[in-house]
Amino acid sequence: MKNTKEYIATHRNRFIQELIDLLKIPSVSADPAFTQDVLDTAEAVEKALLEAGCDTVEIHETAGYPIVYGEKQIDSSLPTVLVYGHYDVQPADPLELWDSPPYEPVIKKTEIHPEGAIFARGSCDDKGQMYMHVKALEFMVKTDQLPCNVKFMIEGEEEVGSNNLAVFVKEHREKLANDIILISDTGMIANDVPSITTGLRGLSYVEVEVTGPNRDLHSGLYGGAVANPINILTKMIAALHDENNRITIPGFYNKVEELSAEERAEMAKAPFSLEAYQNALDIDSVYGEKGYTTNERNAIRPTLDVNGIWGGYIGEGAKTVIPSKAYAKISMRLVPNQDWPEITELFTKHFEAIAPKGVTVKVTPHHGGQGYVTPIDTIGYQAASKAYETTFGKKPIPQRSGGSIPIVALFEQELGSKTILMGFGLDSDAIHSPNEHFGVWNYLKGIETIPYFYKFFTEMNKG
Amino acid sequence: MKNTKEYIATHRNRFIQELIDLLKIPSVSADPAFTQDVLDTAEAVEKALLEAGCDTVEIHETAGYPIVYGEKQIDSSLPTVLVYGHYDVQPADPLELWDSPPYEPVIKKTEIHPEGAIFARGSCDDKGQMYMHVKALEFMVKTDQLPCNVKFMIEGEEEVGSNNLAVFVKEHREKLANDIILISDTGMIANDVPSITTGLRGLSYVEVEVTGPNRDLHSGLYGGAVANPINILTKMIAALHDENNRITIPGFYNKVEELSAEERAEMAKAPFSLEAYQNALDIDSVYGEKGYTTNERNAIRPTLDVNGIWGGYIGEGAKTVIPSKAYAKISMRLVPNQDWPEITELFTKHFEAIAPKGVTVKVTPHHGGQGYVTPIDTIGYQAASKAYETTFGKKPIPQRSGGSIPIVALFEQELGSKTILMGFGLDSDAIHSPNEHFGVWNYLKGIETIPYFYKFFTEMNKG
Repeated sequence: MKNTKEYIATHRNRFIQELIDLLKIPSVSADPAFTQDVLDTAEAVEKALLEAGCDTVEIHETAGYPIVYGEKQIDSSLPTVLVYGHYDVQPADPLELWDSPPYEPVIKKTEIHPEGAIFARGSCDDKGQMYMHVKALEFMVKTDQLPCNVKFMIEGEEEVGSNNLAVFVKEHREKLANDIILISDTGMIANDVPSITTGLRGLSYVEVEVTGPNRDLHSGLYGGAVANPINILTKMIAALHDENNRITIPGFYNKVEELSAEERAEMAKAPFSLEAYQNALDIDSVYGEKGYTTNERNAIRPTLDVNGIWGGYIGEGAKTVIPSKAYAKISMRLVPNQDWPEITELFTKHFEAIAPKGVTVKVTPHHGGQGYVTPIDTIGYQAASKAYETTFGKKPIPQRSGGSIPIVALFEQELGSKTILMGFGLDSDAIHSPNEHFGVWNYLKGIETIPYFYKFFTEMNKG
Repeated sequence: MKNTKEYIATHRNRFIQELIDLLKIPSVSADPAFTQDVLDTAEAVEKALLEAGCDTVEIHETAGYPIVYGEKQIDSSLPTVLVYGHYDVQPADPLELWDSPPYEPVIKKTEIHPEGAIFARGSCDDKGQMYMHVKALEFMVKTDQLPCNVKFMIEGEEEVGSNNLAVFVKEHREKLANDIILISDTGMIANDVPSITTGLRGLSYVEVEVTGPNRDLHSGLYGGAVANPINILTKMIAALHDENNRITIPGFYNKVEELSAEERAEMAKAPFSLEAYQNALDIDSVYGEKGYTTNERNAIRPTLDVNGIWGGYIGEGAKTVIPSKAYAKISMRLVPNQDWPEITELFTKHFEAIAPKGVTVKVTPHHGGQGYVTPIDTIGYQAASKAYETTFGKKPIPQRSGGSIPIVALFEQELGSKTILMGFGLDSDAIHSPNEHFGVWNYLKGIETIPYFYKFFTEMNKG
């Protein structure tokens, strides 16, 4: 690869402006109120791929939001890279906690991002990281250095479970045929500690509803005499963990992969400061499963978190009511070998079983996905490692992530190829949170590093 | 009293229409969005009292919503009745559960109300029951049968704690001097089983806030490693009851009045069908403190109910977030002898004490009030009993209510007089719930019965 730095320096401001324009469209897939914005974003991605140099770009309609598919074929004898990303974003609420409006991107310097970071919903997850690949393609095409074939598959439902992408993949195995899948939707340890994600957690996301009396009741006239759905819901959720913070669902841990002492020792080598971690979150203590370190708890151990809870009167002031219903959204992060449909079923059975008389319980599965592991001895991993080494000046550390990209396991199953997770974001980028941001340095470093992956992967395939 | 039935029959439709007009004003004291409506309601009450025959009516400004005070003095040697009521109402949400808009009153027949019931927020609690007294006064004045002096004190903050009424009462002891206080803000057992409320529960209402990390976090990257404020809040709330559904707050039961076997046997005589109770609420079982019946649980035993809970993502679809904060509104119903400020302090200390490391807890007291008991051997109770006997044809049953009218205990303390609770609503009227209603029969029966109380109370005072 020649002149990567020069090309990026020359087009730096345009690269940033194009991303900012994309971030201005509130493509929230979880909320029907933003339907048109999500559709507009798909068209913006189509346009960007064409301008970057794709020969053909199609917008594939699905039962949900469309999938943008583009490709640049140069020689069928050369390997093919399939780039996956998503153009939808998480909801931005709570809005009041944003220092600047989530869809009015601004660049501000931070301690970790002295060159400035772009603050906006989706800046890192995943519009910013997806767009690095679009600009990397532009560089390779415009400078005649694209060493292999490339396909892009950018979806609009990653934040709501990718159900329609799964259908699309199963129906287009040939079109999507590839030698390696490349995704930037994860993070790295630090700007001076590059890392490659080699493991992802699975996910089971459910919504529960507890119903007591057939109507809201006066807590004076009925208080103490009937089951209060909120009190019951808190009891039931509390019962899902034991005193060691282990999940109490029967069978939940049956298939959990237990790492060897060696593997855990290897993981422990990654630089980590518990004090810095706690300070960054303003907490006086971490909290989790007994017997595991913080990095183990959020990477190799399954979890159960309530992501939302509501019931009764939540407005201003006071209302003395016993509500008819109480609700919660609950997600379980799973580790390799745990099967998400099975876990969803175990949860449902158990949750129904622990409901006391006086209430009825409904569990509605939302979505889920399997965990995933990338072996570090593959050509794909080696090519990525060499690419980071070239642009960062040091070998990246293989790292398990606690996050989930449910579709990755399905890619391997349906397309038979491995996925390389080249993430350039940082944990502190606040994805899924108010004030999400993505470092300008990280954005440009990604655009610089990605072409080297194409180069080394193509060379390693020949040799 | 002469011609009560005739007068009511003649003016029936106007009495109903006037109440409907009052119910159209959404006087929700808990929600600042309705400020002007609450103020408009105060003026409507002022107008109604003047038209009913009060000599003077004043709107007393307070730090919150005004108190409407009116009086009709006929002879200082005669006894004085002080009527208390409130013109504010509970919030109407959840609006989607109303069969007709809460502030567009409609009259519909029901099984229990064959003559029809007025459906609207506040129809029973307390606009409808308060207005019975206004119309009873009109009858006595227009027919020259008012046997004693009468004072009206109608406030606009009962649903939010009556804090400013307490100040008003302390500052106007002389103005409010009376021989008996009369309130219709409770219910009776059934239209053919009249009852008088002789006991009220106290109340302590608090709001709690649990804070974990300083921002919302991605549940994949942080799940399992940090305390999730929602999970913690459910654990803490669940821990407030033991396996027998007794409240675990140290000292909570210290001052609870334990009724004798005789008193409990007397209470048990009130007609009650557990099956009918469960069917009316569509529940397969009641739920409460071990060792007590349903009627005991909601009348003579203290309780702790969550009235509202919220945290995390509660919108459409799914969001994998660990929120920074989770909240709950919690109210405790207290029994006579329990001191609400003391209970509020015990709750606060305990709730802070059971917070695990990794979160901080904030408890904000909302409001509260003491419990109350009316002895049945007083002239006031006897006069009320005789009034019911006259219009219902049978002796009313003395009954403890689970509800709270915090101000009643303060009346006795500051004004030195007892309160008679002549309620004409039914538990099934759904006060504080969607589709609140008040039977037309009950409304008119109240207007018919109240004048007899004035008559008998005045006679018993002379004799």
